[in-house]
Amino acid sequence: MDKLIKKIIEMNNPSVVGLDPKLEYIPEHIKKDAFERCGSGFDGAAEAIINYNKGIIDAVCDIVPAIKPQLAYYEMFSWQGVRAYEQTIAYAQEKGMYVIADGKRNDIGTTMEAYAIAHLGELDIQGTKYTPFGADSLTVNGYLGSDGIKPLLPICKEKDKSIFVLVKTSNPSSGELQNKNLDGKTVYATMGDMCEEWGSELRGEYGYSAVGAVVGATYPEQLKELRALLPHTFFLVPGYGAQGGGAEDVKGAFDANGLGAVINSSRAVLTAWKKEGCPGEEYAAAARREAVRMRDEIVAAIPKMPK
Amino acid sequence: MDKLIKKIIEMNNPSVVGLDPKLEYIPEHIKKDAFERCGSGFDGAAEAIINYNKGIIDAVCDIVPAIKPQLAYYEMFSWQGVRAYEQTIAYAQEKGMYVIADGKRNDIGTTMEAYAIAHLGELDIQGTKYTPFGADSLTVNGYLGSDGIKPLLPICKEKDKSIFVLVKTSNPSSGELQNKNLDGKTVYATMGDMCEEWGSELRGEYGYSAVGAVVGATYPEQLKELRALLPHTFFLVPGYGAQGGGAEDVKGAFDANGLGAVINSSRAVLTAWKKEGCPGEEYAAAARREAVRMRDEIVAAIPKMPK
Repeated sequence: MDKLIKKIIEMNNPSVVGLDPKLEYIPEHIKKDAFERCGSGFDGAAEAIINYNKGIIDAVCDIVPAIKPQLAYYEMFSWQGVRAYEQTIAYAQEKGMYVIADGKRNDIGTTMEAYAIAHLGELDIQGTKYTPFGADSLTVNGYLGSDGIKPLLPICKEKDKSIFVLVKTSNPSSGELQNKNLDGKTVYATMGDMCEEWGSELRGEYGYSAVGAVVGATYPEQLKELRALLPHTFFLVPGYGAQGGGAEDVKGAFDANGLGAVINSSRAVLTAWKKEGCPGEEYAAAARREAVRMRDEIVAAIPKMPK
Repeated sequence: MDKLIKKIIEMNNPSVVGLDPKLEYIPEHIKKDAFERCGSGFDGAAEAIINYNKGIIDAVCDIVPAIKPQLAYYEMFSWQGVRAYEQTIAYAQEKGMYVIADGKRNDIGTTMEAYAIAHLGELDIQGTKYTPFGADSLTVNGYLGSDGIKPLLPICKEKDKSIFVLVKTSNPSSGELQNKNLDGKTVYATMGDMCEEWGSELRGEYGYSAVGAVVGATYPEQLKELRALLPHTFFLVPGYGAQGGGAEDVKGAFDANGLGAVINSSRAVLTAWKKEGCPGEEYAAAARREAVRMRDEIVAAIPKMPK
């Protein structure tokens, strides 16, 4: 996790912009141009997405350490959308950003290895190595147990990548299973313990391992509880802004050094131009203003980071 | 689930062929041709995959009701692999097969709706409807609770689609979480109860709902237990053949009418040509022989289906 933590410290900003490019978020002039050049089906939509994403990335790459593209919003546009996803990752990395692929992938054994290769690794075809999507980090679901997580660990180690395992998600019904009591401990705390265990050989210089956890901003009590329980597990915190969590809610996710978590905001940043009522042409500048606002709000609420 | 059940009855075959096209499964002549025509990177590999898949589909489509492509093995070849995935679904449906997309997708709210649209639905772009992948069924992971499943139910209802929720998976470590005791009931039985609840409004003429469950062939005791507990939940059963489950192990998944489950085999069918030692050119015929063997083995072990 060191690569991400270093960027967070360098920019004094523990936040990540979620790139969920719904068509209604994209200003008309970008869509019009893309549909005219590439047709109004998936090809045009994918072209609009990549152009929109590039604008957001250009606007925030010097102040925000990471982006988190959500795969669902690319798959929705068939393989053309997945191509735009691949282009988005390449562009963000060119601009120095850390990329967290939000795919919540899960499977077992060689199938999970295939996901690890797809999202974080390289594939050998006839003796030559190719990089499929090449993100820096992947969100995963641990319901299948160690067989679903262990295939990712060698790639994390060899290629300096990370994963975030769903522990306590931000949605209202997350408690249906996650809050239930398992032999005296909640399901989410049990999953958290497994994260500590899976990451035990992969700790970096800040004490955090390559196996992080997803913990929602909408559950501040559990954030605090899990921060205390899981000293080596870095948190990815969704649910800030549009889903209802604020800076006071997320501060429990951080340690005494102002580290330990990265906070995601998608909708509030992507649709800042609509909220501000400014023309679509200024969507990127509005996104930057919202990203700055969010950074300042969080940084004011947490301990000062080391230099 | 009626569409799948009808095909199963019509063919007297409760099995599905898993299309996991690893490069090492694909005979040399197909790869050579594809790499020559399309280059040796992702484009060539994707071309080899779709040609290989078409051969398997042609060979089994009159005796096997369904295929189950595993998304990891397509994503591994970047967006070109995802394009081959889309082509595979279209080809299989043209040949009358039911397609179960094995993606184990999971998320919440509008993001889960995006996955539902991507894999089972249609997308409206500028007033025209487009179908991204258009499978008949999708495997999903229920760790996030109802917010992760309910967005799929309207599409299941309106477009006659189905889902399979991970309940008790086939891998050795599945018990780490799934077998634990939750207030007097295992995690997998709790997830099974949720499947009954989620599917309660979506029952079809055979009594099974559009919300099925994934239960591994490697746990015959749990298969029997869950069959009794979940009378309206159809089972997708992986782990047959290569993972160790046999016909005796899976018969507990079926009801008194020989219905209630579909058994998946991937590797044994796809690599039958290697196991038989026959030339790569005969891979499709070998796959058919293995599919027939599997069908006969299962049908002999379970009650006779209705006509």
